Amino acid sequence: MNESFLSACRSEPVGRTPVWYMRQAGRFLPEYRELRERYGILEICRTPELAAEVTLMPVRRMDVDAAVLFSDIMVPVAAMGVDLQIEAGRGPVIERPLSSVSDVERLRAIDPPKDLSFIEKAVQMLVVELDVPLIGFSGGPFTLASYLIEGGPSRSFARTKSLMFGDPEAWGSLMERLTQAIVASLRSQIEAGASAVQVFDSWAGTLSAADYAEHVLPYSKRVFAGVEDLNVPRIHFAVGASHLLEQMRDAGADVVGVDWRLPIDVARERLGSGVAVQGNLEPAALLGPFEGVEEKTRDILRRAGEAPGHIFNLGHGVLPDTDPDSLYRLTELVHEVSAR
Amino acid sequence: MNESFLSACRSEPVGRTPVWYMRQAGRFLPEYRELRERYGILEICRTPELAAEVTLMPVRRMDVDAAVLFSDIMVPVAAMGVDLQIEAGRGPVIERPLSSVSDVERLRAIDPPKDLSFIEKAVQMLVVELDVPLIGFSGGPFTLASYLIEGGPSRSFARTKSLMFGDPEAWGSLMERLTQAIVASLRSQIEAGASAVQVFDSWAGTLSAADYAEHVLPYSKRVFAGVEDLNVPRIHFAVGASHLLEQMRDAGADVVGVDWRLPIDVARERLGSGVAVQGNLEPAALLGPFEGVEEKTRDILRRAGEAPGHIFNLGHGVLPDTDPDSLYRLTELVHEVSAR
Repeated sequence: MNESFLSACRSEPVGRTPVWYMRQAGRFLPEYRELRERYGILEICRTPELAAEVTLMPVRRMDVDAAVLFSDIMVPVAAMGVDLQIEAGRGPVIERPLSSVSDVERLRAIDPPKDLSFIEKAVQMLVVELDVPLIGFSGGPFTLASYLIEGGPSRSFARTKSLMFGDPEAWGSLMERLTQAIVASLRSQIEAGASAVQVFDSWAGTLSAADYAEHVLPYSKRVFAGVEDLNVPRIHFAVGASHLLEQMRDAGADVVGVDWRLPIDVARERLGSGVAVQGNLEPAALLGPFEGVEEKTRDILRRAGEAPGHIFNLGHGVLPDTDPDSLYRLTELVHEVSAR
Repeated sequence: MNESFLSACRSEPVGRTPVWYMRQAGRFLPEYRELRERYGILEICRTPELAAEVTLMPVRRMDVDAAVLFSDIMVPVAAMGVDLQIEAGRGPVIERPLSSVSDVERLRAIDPPKDLSFIEKAVQMLVVELDVPLIGFSGGPFTLASYLIEGGPSRSFARTKSLMFGDPEAWGSLMERLTQAIVASLRSQIEAGASAVQVFDSWAGTLSAADYAEHVLPYSKRVFAGVEDLNVPRIHFAVGASHLLEQMRDAGADVVGVDWRLPIDVARERLGSGVAVQGNLEPAALLGPFEGVEEKTRDILRRAGEAPGHIFNLGHGVLPDTDPDSLYRLTELVHEVSAR
């Protein structure tokens, strides 16, 4: 077993910087697009053999140091009784978005052995196959709430914030239920064999530091505390959240994911020692010539420095138009340049 | 003439903190929505009487310390020969987005007296009517480029960045042409009577600090330098750009607009003296109860401190669902609390 990813998560020294990519099991891979011609996204998520197969695709192609379970952050939410679709190129779409405390109260608590058994099975199948750690994941509380309330993609998150500011009872009840579902989902993935977990609170960066502290952080803390006894590294990630890094660490993360906006040395400086960082190549760099990718990558590795605790990744998911060859070359490059 | 806005822009002392709102002439106003039932957005922009009328609407309703010309950032771009629509609730949509240097080379240089005479007329009409300063504006170079390349709203700006990283010739030529058009448009507004200008490079925050420095800042500098001799305050604004504040100042701004993510005292601390700040109430706070708005507003005014050079504003445009009464109350509140 290649343990470098787990060592780096624990801020322990490694022979070379471990690397994996958010959405490495996704649309940029021709074999994934081929599979998607036959199956819907939720269908793949709910069929252990297919989810495992997609999870393995990038691992077969590239020398990544971790696999990430193929699933969708809305899968546990669907199990709470929400009728939703995942539309290609658009994301989760919900017919009847939540707008009141009574909508919220209709959300069911999930029981993973019953509701998410397909995930447990996929994880169990994968840990037998893999010789790198498997990362389980969940959406974060703000991000899941935002999909449930907006009903689709949003730029302003106006409905979400309107409920957050205007209906504390509904917001509290929603965050409470989501927190429980997130913990249950993460625990079931870890118990089935996942070696680490990442919480994608992708859109939390749309909140001010003060509003994040008041309306989200208390729940994020419970999410991280809720899996602490299982003793696996916990990664916390959001985009456009340069202003929230310290709070994301304080939520209880072992690793903070940093998007591409902030130089990673600045992020490390602000976060201090004792917490690892993950990132932070601009995903769109891979749409340009490889020389640009190489320059940025060398800069990131230089800035990340010699102190242990850096996992190389993109600053957000692999973009669908990314040339797979560029990503393979990038993986080699990171290993080569960082070899100690 | 109420000069407090201009004094604050110049970091000079004022009797009370001046206030205006991005999109104060917009969809939250019932009288605007009524007008929109009869006229399209571009039609209003291109009819001096209508543009002036909409500009005056919020000034009649509220005691704001500045008016902002009603227009659309795509108006000068349309004058460059681009076929575009402004779709309600969606923004600019372009039938044939730019994707190559030959597309870029088809963009015409604008000649404001000919191409933007309706703006000049609207400004001339307004400065006679108004007893507060009129703010002219333009989109910033990255933001205009992104609309031209994406063809519609985007979350990843993948096409824009792909061109930026992958086709430096097309990118350079596009930024060059946009810079000239922006300067021409700003100069014509100032020469017609605008007392200040704001450059909305709204989506520049999607770039890393290094990429902004390399691919955008040189052009932003030329934009600000291009109107320096006209000696009016220049405001520079982007959303989600906490990591770019210093660069936005260094582009040549007298005032840096700060969205709601970063506490305004942190922004002032980072920017140093000699530059004013504008902001920074979370626009969605106005969708909640007024007590929340009041608490946040008092906090902003306290954090902005006693040093001159703060213009109160929202951190982004007024959201369409904002209750007009909340905004009127907010305006009073800012004046009351900040009275010296």
